[in-house]
This record gives sequence, C-alpha cells and structure tokens, in this order.
Amino acid sequence: VGKPPYASELAYRRMPSGVARGLAWTPLGGAVLYVESIDTGHQGSGGAFTGGPRLHTTGQIGSVMKESSDIALSFARRFLQAKDPANRFFERAYIHMHVPEGATPKDGPSAGCTMVTSLLSLALNRPVPSDLAMTGEMTLTGRILPVGGIREKVVAAKRAGLKRVLLPQQNIRDWEELPDYIRRGLEVSFVSSYDDVYRIAFASAGAGASAGAS
Amino acid sequence: VGKPPYASELAYRRMPSGVARGLAWTPLGGAVLYVESIDTGHQGSGGAFTGGPRLHTTGQIGSVMKESSDIALSFARRFLQAKDPANRFFERAYIHMHVPEGATPKDGPSAGCTMVTSLLSLALNRPVPSDLAMTGEMTLTGRILPVGGIREKVVAAKRAGLKRVLLPQQNIRDWEELPDYIRRGLEVSFVSSYDDVYRIAFASAGAGASAGAS
Amino acid sequence: VGKPPYASELAYRRMPSGVARGLAWTPLGGAVLYVESIDTGHQGSGGAFTGGPRLHTTGQIGSVMKESSDIALSFARRFLQAKDPANRFFERAYIHMHVPEGATPKDGPSAGCTMVTSLLSLALNRPVPSDLAMTGEMTLTGRILPVGGIREKVVAAKRAGLKRVLLPQQNIRDWEELPDYIRRGLEVSFVSSYDDVYRIAFASAGAGASAGAS
Repeated sequence: VGKPPYASELAYRRMPSGVARGLAWTPLGGAVLYVESIDTGHQGSGGAFTGGPRLHTTGQIGSVMKESSDIALSFARRFLQAKDPANRFFERAYIHMHVPEGATPKDGPSAGCTMVTSLLSLALNRPVPSDLAMTGEMTLTGRILPVGGIREKVVAAKRAGLKRVLLPQQNIRDWEELPDYIRRGLEVSFVSSYDDVYRIAFASAGAGASAGAS
Repeated sequence: VGKPPYASELAYRRMPSGVARGLAWTPLGGAVLYVESIDTGHQGSGGAFTGGPRLHTTGQIGSVMKESSDIALSFARRFLQAKDPANRFFERAYIHMHVPEGATPKDGPSAGCTMVTSLLSLALNRPVPSDLAMTGEMTLTGRILPVGGIREKVVAAKRAGLKRVLLPQQNIRDWEELPDYIRRGLEVSFVSSYDDVYRIAFASAGAGASAGAS
Repeated sequence: VGKPPYASELAYRRMPSGVARGLAWTPLGGAVLYVESIDTGHQGSGGAFTGGPRLHTTGQIGSVMKESSDIALSFARRFLQAKDPANRFFERAYIHMHVPEGATPKDGPSAGCTMVTSLLSLALNRPVPSDLAMTGEMTLTGRILPVGGIREKVVAAKRAGLKRVLLPQQNIRDWEELPDYIRRGLEVSFVSSYDDVYRIAFASAGAGASAGAS
C-alpha cells in the first residue's frame, strides 16, 4: 500500500559496470527494474572449470525469468566471443545476478535484453548510460521479441526521469498508439536484434559519458 | 488476446546455422516454432568432459519435449558420426537449445525432427533453407512418426509465407484431405526417415542458397 | 504468550566477531535480531574449491531471507577484495550463518545489511559495536533499499537499550514522522550504500571499544 513496486527509487547516480536498467510490467503499473551482475571471484583464474552453474541468480525470479538468465548468459558469452575474442571473462567468471527488490516475486521474459546488457557491461567493464532503459525478450541467437505492457513501461520510464528507451521493433505500433503527452520528452529506439542494443548501450566514449537523469 | 501464439513473427531474414523452423499445434491454431541451438563454448576444446549435461534446454518445454531434445541429441550425434566421422562437434560442444517464445509453455514430440535439424545445422555450420518448415516425431533410430494438427500447421506455414513443408509419410492422408485452396502454393515432401529430411534440409549448394520467403 | 518474539534477550555483553545486530518487524511488534556467522573449518586452505555451497544457513529462514544471505556473501566477498585484497578469508572459509531463535520462522530482505556486517566482522575478526543495530535491504552492488516497520524497529531498539541505529536513507521520512518521545535518546544514521554502514560499524579503534548498553 503506497509503496511503489520494484526499486524505482534505487536511483543510481552513476551506474556501476554490471548494472542495467529495465522496465517491468506489474499489476500495479509499470516499474523501473534493475539487473545487477557481479563477478563473485568464486574461482581462481587458474583452475579448469569442472561443471556446475556459472551463474547464480537471486531476486525471487520465476521459472521463465530464470530461463531468461540462462539464455542471456549463453548469448552474451557467444556475442563477446565474436566482438572481442581476447576477452575471456565468461570463461573464468562465476557470476551472481540479482534483480532487486529481493522480496518482490518477478517473472516473464521481457528482462532478457536487460540481462544481456548487464552481463556485457560486467564483462567489458563499461557502464551502461544512466539515462537509458530497455525492455525486450531475447532469443538465443540474438533476436528481440515483442513484449507486453508498453504503455505502463513507458510511463514508468518517464516518471523515473529517464530520457532514452529501447523497445522491440515489433512493438512499434504500441508506441505509435500512445498519446502525444506520454511520448513527449522520450527518445525511443526500436531494436530487432541485440546488435541494435549493443550499438546504443555501449556506444563509444560520448554515450557512456552522457549525463544521467535520475 | 490478440497476440499470436509462438514466435510467428520472429522472421529471420537469413537463418543462422543452428536455427530450424518447425510447425506447432496450439489450442489457438497452428504456429511456426523455432528451435535455436548454439555452442556455448562452455568448455575449452582441450579439456576432457567430465560429466554433467551437454545439452541445456530452455523455453518452458514440458517433459515430453525435453525427452525429444535428448533423443535429438543422441540421434544427431550418431547420424553425424556416420555421415562425417571427422566432425567431432558433438564430442566437445556444450549446447544450449532454446525454443522461443520463452513465456509460452510447450510440449509434445512433434518438434523432434526440427530439433535434430537444428543440431545438425549447428554441427555442420550450414544454415537451413529459410523457406522450409517441418514437423515430425523422431525415434532414436531415425524413423519419423506421424503427428497431429496437420491442417493447422499447414495453414500456419502458408500464413508465414513459407514455400516448402516436410510432413511425416504417415500423415499423407491428412494432407490429401485438405481442400485445394489450402494446399495451393505449398510444396510438400513426405518423409519416413531422417535421411529424407537431411537430403532436403542440407542439400548441397543450391538449396542452402535458395531465397527465403519471410 | 508472554515470550517476546526473536532473541531480544540474547544480550551479548561483548559482541564476538561474526555477530551483528539487526532489527526485525514481526506481527507482534519490532524485535532485535542477531545474525551469527562462524567459520566451520570445513575445508582446508589448501584445496581448490570445486563447487557446492560455501555458506550454510540455519534459523528457519524463508526463501527471500535465504537469497539475502547469498547476496550478502557475494557482496561481502567483493567488498573485502576491494578494501583488503590480502585478506583471503572468503576464498577458504566454509561459513555457517545462523539467525536465532531457531524455532521462529523468519523471512524478508531487511536483514541483508546485518548479514553483510556479520560476514565482514568474521572475515576481519573485528567485533561490531555492541550499542549498534541496523536494518536495510542490500542490493548486489551495495545499495541500501528502504524497508518496512521503521516505527516498530526503532521502538525495539530503544527497549533493548541500544544507542545507535542505522536506517536506509530512503526511510528518512518514516523516522521524521515518529513522535519525539520515541526518537529521544537514539542516534540515527541514514545509509544509502554499504560504504556508509562500513564506516560506522567498523570505524577504527574507538568505535569498537565504545561501551555497549545492554
């Protein structure tokens, strides 16, 4: 009662590497959702990995969202192999991914693209721009699938003072049907594959330094 | 409400290696279904594999479909050993197979032949023709068993703009009973063993380069 | 009947390293809650870690609180790596964390910051000041999120004779709305990241020696 869902007030002033900002739909409306990934340093870099999970998740996430994290790790690893073969981060890291707030049950596939971004930000040690939020289901080969709750998510992004939002290409009609007063002040990019997300989230120099809105 | 089941709009323009297109029956009608497999690079190529799963699946698939993926891996591995003994892909790979969309529960054996095709496409690094869809249950020795929902599946293939469909030999009567206006414009091949599928999905040169319809 | 919830009478005169004092909300009112961590010596320092849990928890804690302990361990490990790279405690320790009283079911994320403090106290072998209690949800990157039940928790801290309380920055309004007679005699610090907690809980020399109130 009265408490907004999710961590809409988490309000990072500077986003540390490994943190990405998503948008969630809840029965109470849209909400900003964070995905935090850290390297726990669980294993030394020397030893050969002998099985078991490399990704530990917390945040009361349901089975679909748990699968999203598996997909995100598989995709991010392969994506990084192509982009930067010298980067061996995913070969040695033992990652913990958390989705605050810890007491709020969460599920659904729409955080997939935020999870990939969180993992790549960690692997590349590059922060995600702090005025940017995103939503979209990932497939294992990097396609971005449409999601629900576009109106609520866009409203939540505005309320949080964000300037830039990434939406799936196939949600373009949902955006176009929104009234002008909601769309005003938001810069929206439509993405159909993770390549599109990468260009925006990890654009060189300038983008990373753009001022956050929170 | 209004949203079509499964990823009928996933719409790969070019099919990457490891992706195969199937046809599914759902309570809401037929649907195009994708099977995506990637090599996660989980293990280095040097180390011996010391147990644990070699195939990780996601996509909210039920127990029958999970078993289909096990059958697909066992069959594909043995099939490749016969076709191309020098190819050691399945000996070293740690595969992640995903069936979008991630929030839609799926089950049943009819994606078996699509799963084998996805795995072989990955192992051979050869894309499946982008105008082709298939349905059929696999046995462990490569027989193709008949499936349900032929009418709905054929309609879904047409709606997605596909040109070629593989159906189990034993479903030939279901096809012949379809009205002409549904059958028109589709080239159907009937398959009784995976050899038949292989000849069509991995036909040399020309087939791989044939233009997709999506 | 008549027995206060949680271990408000546990009343450590001197806090051993590994123990931190939190504040809990219960249906019967606020309560002081302890988190105790010890090194079980389960593994020798020589062997390479090959998987499995490094943290064992007891105390009838629910799924959210269990995740809090995972988050606390991941965060504390990384925090210590930054503060004191020579300290290898978390690389070799096999930790048992208990939340008395053992028969009382507990859940919720608000002990997160107390759990981190318990773990760091153990790793650093430095006791937490015995007049200090705290409450706050942790994120994986060290942010402190607001919690519920501030009034009840503050009352419980006073009743237990504590002098200093740490509350999340975003709970400042809850504190300001409390009547004067409750706030009197308590020194409250508002914390927004674990750095703030660390400075107070592990302030050098003087703080550790300040007299407890119990």
